[in-house]
Amino acid sequence: MIKVEKIEKFILELFQKIGCSEHDSEIVSKVLLKAELRGIPSHGLLRIIDYVSLLEKGRINIFPNIKIEQETLSTAVVNGDKALGMIAGTFAMKLAIEKAKNCGTGWVACSNSNHFGIAGYYAMMALEHDMIGITMTNASPLVAPTFSISKMLGSNPMAFAIPAGKQPPFIADFATTPIAVGKLNIMSKKGLECPHGWVQDKFGKPSSDPDILKKDGALLTLGSDYEHGSHKGFCMSSVVDIFSGVFSGANFGPFVPPSVPYIPESLEKTGLGTGHFFGAMRIDAFQETSEFKARMDKWIESFRNAEHAVDKPNVVIPGDPERENEKRILEQGVDVHSKILEDVKFLVQKFNLINTLE
Amino acid sequence: MIKVEKIEKFILELFQKIGCSEHDSEIVSKVLLKAELRGIPSHGLLRIIDYVSLLEKGRINIFPNIKIEQETLSTAVVNGDKALGMIAGTFAMKLAIEKAKNCGTGWVACSNSNHFGIAGYYAMMALEHDMIGITMTNASPLVAPTFSISKMLGSNPMAFAIPAGKQPPFIADFATTPIAVGKLNIMSKKGLECPHGWVQDKFGKPSSDPDILKKDGALLTLGSDYEHGSHKGFCMSSVVDIFSGVFSGANFGPFVPPSVPYIPESLEKTGLGTGHFFGAMRIDAFQETSEFKARMDKWIESFRNAEHAVDKPNVVIPGDPERENEKRILEQGVDVHSKILEDVKFLVQKFNLINTLE
Repeated sequence: MIKVEKIEKFILELFQKIGCSEHDSEIVSKVLLKAELRGIPSHGLLRIIDYVSLLEKGRINIFPNIKIEQETLSTAVVNGDKALGMIAGTFAMKLAIEKAKNCGTGWVACSNSNHFGIAGYYAMMALEHDMIGITMTNASPLVAPTFSISKMLGSNPMAFAIPAGKQPPFIADFATTPIAVGKLNIMSKKGLECPHGWVQDKFGKPSSDPDILKKDGALLTLGSDYEHGSHKGFCMSSVVDIFSGVFSGANFGPFVPPSVPYIPESLEKTGLGTGHFFGAMRIDAFQETSEFKARMDKWIESFRNAEHAVDKPNVVIPGDPERENEKRILEQGVDVHSKILEDVKFLVQKFNLINTLE
Repeated sequence: MIKVEKIEKFILELFQKIGCSEHDSEIVSKVLLKAELRGIPSHGLLRIIDYVSLLEKGRINIFPNIKIEQETLSTAVVNGDKALGMIAGTFAMKLAIEKAKNCGTGWVACSNSNHFGIAGYYAMMALEHDMIGITMTNASPLVAPTFSISKMLGSNPMAFAIPAGKQPPFIADFATTPIAVGKLNIMSKKGLECPHGWVQDKFGKPSSDPDILKKDGALLTLGSDYEHGSHKGFCMSSVVDIFSGVFSGANFGPFVPPSVPYIPESLEKTGLGTGHFFGAMRIDAFQETSEFKARMDKWIESFRNAEHAVDKPNVVIPGDPERENEKRILEQGVDVHSKILEDVKFLVQKFNLINTLE
């Protein structure tokens, strides 16, 4: 178990050594740590080695000149200038919040960005302003639409953060696929088969091989197959792609650049980099703040107290498990995987850092 | 097959006879006809008998005084005054479009409404203004959240209408459940079992009984079970409920009044009537209109041309099947079910109308 402060110190020093400003390094560190704390290590320290590679390949720009390209009172389009996704994302979400202050809601599409970590981080930025936060992003194409064998979509997550009163906020942050890619890796490492309905083989047939993505297979959309509504999961994933990619001027669909350096980019481009979409809605644009929060408390309590099936737990309010993780991990520290510790060692040597994780 | 004009005439005369204004009767007729044309008869003529019953029970007000209760530049909350859902919905979506004209986007939550027909109708209202339209509504509680046996949510549909250029618009309109309730009725009438993953029995166990809703069973959320991401379907359905019900001041979750007269209402209320949520986003708030439309064309063409699996059709672009239905049904007429023709006869007698459907 490694204390959070030690990880923070490592990330800060690494990104400053690479050339990022103190301010930018702090943002990157905050977003990656939040993933570790919330129990989503697939979006934490694990990613750093890829970010560094993308930087060396010139796909990430550490001195970005992030610009507003277009705006109305409630909207903007931001060009991230190939920034680290956390830098572009934080800029764009802050802008959405400012717009919401002025006219009730703010909506910002961002192009020319990169992998931005957990979508929930940006949605949660709205909470302290008594706003609802919304985030979407497109991502490396790994998902086949219903009936297809082509990888046309990413995991394309949506996040919603909605404040409550006595209850903790409602925080939903989910891929529009049955499972996250990380789960396939876990099954593979354990030598387990995965259940039907997660992936398909290169012919579009059901598969239980957790390594099928490396064999021209694809992830499925939420719903798994047509009979169980995978076309609805396709609709959701499409909306995320269109809002993030088409609105912003970024690449979309199969043209989104992979967030890992070892998968080649599409030769055809439909825009600039990866795209995100951010929304902020002032609570008091709809209801008196205390009234709204009391209503959200009632909503959360009603669902928390819904009757559970005999051998099942209570209804899980979105955000509850991650908040419990956060409390536990802050106390106990992060259980960093040995593979990641090797990456850290490599980076420490390469950039002549002190290894705070040892 | 009954010509669309004849159905239109019947609906117009019925609602005017009941006491609705000519203007309101036209709106109701337009929305119900659109459902028939798009091949969604569960939201067309079939519903009229229930609307009349709810009217007689005092749950629908045909002389509504629809009011804006709260507003900012980009948002409003509307109280539907127990109007027919189509009347309140059209009012609220028009308001969202007006707000978008002024500040880029418009977002309207509506309380104290009733069943409003197909969600897609309102989203599509945005298209002629070169805007993206969004609609959500909460609905009669029939759906159990992951792990629960309590019916806490409705089919809670989302609709998105996004303009394109040479291509027809992208129009997604889907329940956040694996299937619509109507599909269960069809299976039941045919004496068929339904696949696992659509419904559960009263103990929360998998069921293939299409009549299970009448035996204290429940519909599942999109994803079907936890292993296949039903908690993500639960997140989506919750967001629809919170945006439609909590934002607006309507009832939410299990407190939403059923849209059919024979299911008793919850004794506890958390607000007024049923809630909807509407959004309108100006295309040119994000990109020059022609550029945006060309990008949407490229998106649609890329997905339409994605490689399909051997025994499967091409990828279905959301809105394509409904548009084909519309063309066909406009020419050939509507195949009205005999049960509905009986309802029509009953209403013709009751209100002393001419039966244009005979």
